[in-house]
Amino acid sequence: MKIVVIGASGTLGRAVCAELKQRHEVIEVGATRGDYHVDATNLPSVERLFHEIGRVDAVVATIGKVHFGPFREMTADQFWIGLRDKLMGQINVVLAAQHHVNDGGSFTLTGGILADEPIREGINATTVNFALEGFVRGAAIELPRGLRINLVSPTLLEESAQAYGSYFRGFEPVSAQRAALAFCRSVEGAQTGRVYRVGS
Amino acid sequence: MKIVVIGASGTLGRAVCAELKQRHEVIEVGATRGDYHVDATNLPSVERLFHEIGRVDAVVATIGKVHFGPFREMTADQFWIGLRDKLMGQINVVLAAQHHVNDGGSFTLTGGILADEPIREGINATTVNFALEGFVRGAAIELPRGLRINLVSPTLLEESAQAYGSYFRGFEPVSAQRAALAFCRSVEGAQTGRVYRVGS
Ligand SMILES: NC(=O)c1ccc[n+]([C@@H]2O[C@H](COP(=O)([O-])OP(=O)(O)OC[C@H]3O[C@@H](n4cnc5c(N)ncnc54)[C@H](OP(=O)(O)O)[C@@H]3O)[C@@H](O)[C@H]2O)c1
Ligand SMILES: NC(=O)c1ccc[n+]([C@@H]2O[C@H](COP(=O)([O-])OP(=O)(O)OC[C@H]3O[C@@H](n4cnc5c(N)ncnc54)[C@H](OP(=O)(O)O)[C@@H]3O)[C@@H](O)[C@H]2O)c1
Repeated sequence: MKIVVIGASGTLGRAVCAELKQRHEVIEVGATRGDYHVDATNLPSVERLFHEIGRVDAVVATIGKVHFGPFREMTADQFWIGLRDKLMGQINVVLAAQHHVNDGGSFTLTGGILADEPIREGINATTVNFALEGFVRGAAIELPRGLRINLVSPTLLEESAQAYGSYFRGFEPVSAQRAALAFCRSVEGAQTGRVYRVGS
Repeated sequence: MKIVVIGASGTLGRAVCAELKQRHEVIEVGATRGDYHVDATNLPSVERLFHEIGRVDAVVATIGKVHFGPFREMTADQFWIGLRDKLMGQINVVLAAQHHVNDGGSFTLTGGILADEPIREGINATTVNFALEGFVRGAAIELPRGLRINLVSPTLLEESAQAYGSYFRGFEPVSAQRAALAFCRSVEGAQTGRVYRVGS
């Protein structure tokens, strides 16, 4: 398969690429690194990307910023960060790429544990991860030509435990490599509208 | 209790006000009708509203536009409609009002059946309704002073069946009055972080 990974240079994306490359042709895309560059928060930028790349069999997105901070002092602009970046960034990928994925191809997006296990200061992530689950369930019944779409929802990664661990006391991290397996299940499996939870 | 209903003049809001008024003081708020006017999509507008109204015991939001249309030709701007209006509109209400609700008071927001039952052309609503569920679960664990927050998720209302029924073939509508009971359960009950599904 020819697979585009957007967010390929990230902590999660690197592990996903390593798994997929064992069996597939992987095109690595990032904001500043990789074979191609894109700003997923900007739909025309994603459209240009897929016009350049042409037809593919699968698209994986491992991108997305969210805002962490106390709800009592959150601003609307801070709440918008996750909506614009992690949510609409990944939705833009599907909006643009749906016309460039071969029959029976797939989308795999990235959510996260905070949908299942809210934490203090994590409301933006919880909202966005739920929204992504809704998006995937809605898209799964509407995409044509046997196109599939799933969400991978990993818990905290071992590789990020030092950076984010203070928010996640008592959470058992998983390796990015283990989370990457769920992306393979989505890309190489036959399901659609599924959420693959890793470590929750 | 002193209860603010934002969206009081709407199909759902009218029924909610009628139920709550039997036992409580209800302040009716709308975009263009009611005791007070607000644009919930604009956080400063909601902040002004609560500065005028002062302290209350409960806040109910029965507002929110979403976009209906085929995913294959959806634009980012169309997808933004539901995020800006139904999602951030209601989030803005909680962001602003959290500082004006008395101890033990509550928020009750409005989702909808499309979270559980996606339909063609309904992906924007499915995404937004999921996001609202995530928001409520995240806020429930973070709100201070015993503040509670729940979501009411009604199926199609009988009163709207003529307008929207063609999207909802085979769905059994409920009366707005029946949906309004779930708002009473949230406002007058003791739960938090709950989704009250009506007719699904
Ligand atoms: N890390 C964790 O513990 C963890 C756990 C659960 C879920 N997740 C989720 O997994 C996703 C990735 O997290 P991560 O920790 O791997 O992030 P990361 O290391 O910061 O990597 C981010 C990746 O996204 C790319 N990127 C950034 N902005 C972009 C944009 N506007 N358009 C396109 N690409 C963009 C970056 O490209 P460049 O390198 O080229 O700038 C990089 O490849 C996020 O959604 C996160 O919430 C992470
Ligand atoms: N109707 C249904 O069958 C149904 C079923 C399930 C869920 N829902 C959900 O229930 C909610 C209300 O639906 P509805 O059918 O009752 O809507 P509606 O009849 O169109 O009423 C909308 C209400 O919101 C107010 N409003 C509009 N824009 C606003 C803004 N920017 N700021 C503050 N208030 C604003 C309106 O005020 P003015 O009148 O003053 O303009 C009106 O009171 C929506 O979230 C909808 O998705 C509806």
